[in-house]
Amino acid sequence: MKSRTIFFVSDRTAITAETLGNSLMSQFADVERERHIIPFVDTQKRAESLKKKINAAYTVNEGRPLVFSTFTDDSLRKIVSESDCIFYDLFNDYITRMESDLRQESSHELGRSHGVVDKNSYESRIRAVNYALVNDDGACLDHYQQADVILVGVSRTGKTPTSLFLALQYGIFTANFPITDSDLDNCSLPRALKPYKEKLFGLTIEAEQLSRIRQERRPDSPYASLRTCQREVSQVEELFQLENIPYLNVTSISVEEIAAKIRFDT
Amino acid sequence: MKSRTIFFVSDRTAITAETLGNSLMSQFADVERERHIIPFVDTQKRAESLKKKINAAYTVNEGRPLVFSTFTDDSLRKIVSESDCIFYDLFNDYITRMESDLRQESSHELGRSHGVVDKNSYESRIRAVNYALVNDDGACLDHYQQADVILVGVSRTGKTPTSLFLALQYGIFTANFPITDSDLDNCSLPRALKPYKEKLFGLTIEAEQLSRIRQERRPDSPYASLRTCQREVSQVEELFQLENIPYLNVTSISVEEIAAKIRFDT
Repeated sequence: MKSRTIFFVSDRTAITAETLGNSLMSQFADVERERHIIPFVDTQKRAESLKKKINAAYTVNEGRPLVFSTFTDDSLRKIVSESDCIFYDLFNDYITRMESDLRQESSHELGRSHGVVDKNSYESRIRAVNYALVNDDGACLDHYQQADVILVGVSRTGKTPTSLFLALQYGIFTANFPITDSDLDNCSLPRALKPYKEKLFGLTIEAEQLSRIRQERRPDSPYASLRTCQREVSQVEELFQLENIPYLNVTSISVEEIAAKIRFDT
Repeated sequence: MKSRTIFFVSDRTAITAETLGNSLMSQFADVERERHIIPFVDTQKRAESLKKKINAAYTVNEGRPLVFSTFTDDSLRKIVSESDCIFYDLFNDYITRMESDLRQESSHELGRSHGVVDKNSYESRIRAVNYALVNDDGACLDHYQQADVILVGVSRTGKTPTSLFLALQYGIFTANFPITDSDLDNCSLPRALKPYKEKLFGLTIEAEQLSRIRQERRPDSPYASLRTCQREVSQVEELFQLENIPYLNVTSISVEEIAAKIRFDT
């Protein structure tokens, strides 16, 4: 099995080329030798230089490089696709098929997958980020009327990164609020949250992983002990069930998955 | 021209299906009637129910629905692809070609494009988010040794969202630091940043847009006036040039693009 150099290339951010390309590559063992992510190849000169780089990566010892492309510009794509590589044309393959399926020519505009032209969407996402920052960790109780969702959970269950991801990726106004010992002991929701029960979404996690994460913050503290974590996790799940709050165990899933599930469920 | 219902579907987050599908759809005018994003179709029951939903969207007045899929599971994909639709199989089309190109069978594992199994990557991104939060807006001067990049710019140029995006998407340790009036008047970098000059990256923006953004924060203030914004922007760009700091005008680009450029340039 020859190992190969992998390129993720685009005239825009190359985020899609990298994400989809990664996902495809993960299905094949021992293929990847090294990888290059090359976004913003938006001039002829840059395309020619990329072509040279790809050609240089194809040596006698190695297989032809794999190139995952989301070029939208036809002439730039052509230059790069003519290098000594196996070219996976993630964007144009479908444009060609869609033109035929829809019996309509495509507009050949520069790819706008990430909301570049959509200023409203961009600004609403920035507003959502500001909202998430102001309303992190129960810092502020005045703005819950505006929230699309309020994440709840014990300390260190990923509430903050999830809030920020929901804001950045989807423009969802997300607050988060910690469930503390006194809430757990009473098995009741914090008073500030009671009027917004339908907006709540719970995060939980395996006690072992929670303990490990808390160790990083406060090593060898009661806060980080497995015993404390086991108690808190079991109490908070009981609370979620009692109050009928939808919740998710985030132990082995990524922040993207958590966010996509919350967006889908709420 | 018949308008159609669009589906973005997956047994995972559907982020890739939605992003690439959006980008493809943006090339065709007046096609989309309504859209459904349906992630986590990970059981036979859910796949059957999605099939029914797609079939129901195909009526006499409308064209066949367009389905953008990143299903990795063969049997679930088969169920959905047999609905009355035009099926764009963004994942499997390439798996099939790669198996032939690489003369290797794919592992048929569940798609791992978003770092689900890669705990190290997940945790380093969470660490990067925590770093970005602690080191937001010059709040803390002790940790710049750890920074991969320090964003600089006048108030409201998108430093915070960009820092968070760099952290969440790429695990890049990003601090950010405001350039204030006294720095601008002296045309010199803040003292705290001087030892880390090679890590600095500047953000700038058109004065009109800056003024509009500041108006939201402090309406009719000198801070938000066009005159102030024009002066600050021109002074900060002069400073960036004088100090040889790479910088980017973020006026009409998205946070994804800003982040991808910074990652590529640093």
